[in-house]
Amino acid sequence: MAEGKGDLKLLGLWATPFVMRVRMVLEQKGLNYEYLEQDLSNKSELLLKHNPIYKKVPVLIHGDSGISESLVILQYVDENWSKTGPPLLPSTPYERAIARFWAAYIDDKLQASTRGILMAATEEAMTEKVADACAALETLEGAFESCSAGKDFFAGNSIGYLDIILGSLTVWIRVLENISGAKLLDETKVPLLVEWEKRFLTVDYVNKVLPTVERLEEYGRALRATT
Amino acid sequence: MAEGKGDLKLLGLWATPFVMRVRMVLEQKGLNYEYLEQDLSNKSELLLKHNPIYKKVPVLIHGDSGISESLVILQYVDENWSKTGPPLLPSTPYERAIARFWAAYIDDKLQASTRGILMAATEEAMTEKVADACAALETLEGAFESCSAGKDFFAGNSIGYLDIILGSLTVWIRVLENISGAKLLDETKVPLLVEWEKRFLTVDYVNKVLPTVERLEEYGRALRATT
Repeated sequence: MAEGKGDLKLLGLWATPFVMRVRMVLEQKGLNYEYLEQDLSNKSELLLKHNPIYKKVPVLIHGDSGISESLVILQYVDENWSKTGPPLLPSTPYERAIARFWAAYIDDKLQASTRGILMAATEEAMTEKVADACAALETLEGAFESCSAGKDFFAGNSIGYLDIILGSLTVWIRVLENISGAKLLDETKVPLLVEWEKRFLTVDYVNKVLPTVERLEEYGRALRATT
Repeated sequence: MAEGKGDLKLLGLWATPFVMRVRMVLEQKGLNYEYLEQDLSNKSELLLKHNPIYKKVPVLIHGDSGISESLVILQYVDENWSKTGPPLLPSTPYERAIARFWAAYIDDKLQASTRGILMAATEEAMTEKVADACAALETLEGAFESCSAGKDFFAGNSIGYLDIILGSLTVWIRVLENISGAKLLDETKVPLLVEWEKRFLTVDYVNKVLPTVERLEEYGRALRATT
């Protein structure tokens, strides 16, 4: 560990994109960490101690310090291990601002609408949330075009902050296409993102972390059935 | 200007806490900027060009680059003018993570509930939102105790990121006490924050930016009456 103050633990749930993104960054940085799958119906003392406000995952525990909220954790890992592995955020203040803007957009708009698709109780709600997700993806197609400037990933030729954040939703998006019957990552509407997703999914540590569509779909359908 | 790529403009609305916080940071850093009050019922070309996604203020325009979302702007200003004026965010990755966590909490919980008080259409909704705001302030009392460690401000002896973010809500909180008839910054429940607010309001650039309670209350009551 480059800059240590104790060992690293990650409290997580395998199916949550917010946890997937933290795991991908820890893998990308090559950090050793202990992954502790949580049961949120019976919250652990570690979780309650280190995230007393939200009592949610992910929580990264570094030594005795807990850090919550995935975007906060990603920036912490990048800043604390700035010399370990590739940088996650871009190098200039302006590019970092743009990356933070789109990260918040992905969580506010795309993630919220994919969650809406999963939990839609009526046909009407489903249609509305599918439209929201498609609109968010089309906006992100433009963001990708502008940020990547013809390169492979949002931040250039290697995976960065926005790739990890959007990438954590890719398997869910494919699952939700199966559940809704609607095309979300549609190559006629978001061709750059469809190609980006293919490149993203060829990366070893991405595949190590992301679950299969089949496993996540089984989980998603079970969640829909019980709520 | 320490690190320039052109002049600075801020598109704003005087009554919006998100704009107040950006202005306070620009003043704190001693940067020259042109403030352009916007009319959101007739959006300017500058606003539509530089924030096409949300079409909201604040937008900071630096040279020809627009940056939106107040927390993104604050970090941009701090990073781009890192050697001008006092640092806004703390120096260690862990302290920065804690500051980012609470900044998001202030916007998600406190700001949302104060907005809810302002727009409450029924007595029941008002009571609920007042309870939410009080709960958020009590949580923030604990955050202040932990972050400040006995010093004057969240980040120590001078104003930092969380002071500016929470501070941008102080006048609104006093206005909403008048509108709701409920005590929000109650010295029996949040004594540290009440003392913190007094210290915050003695700072010159804070007073230069923040409107008076009277002016903001007139605006708030007019907004309630028309929606």
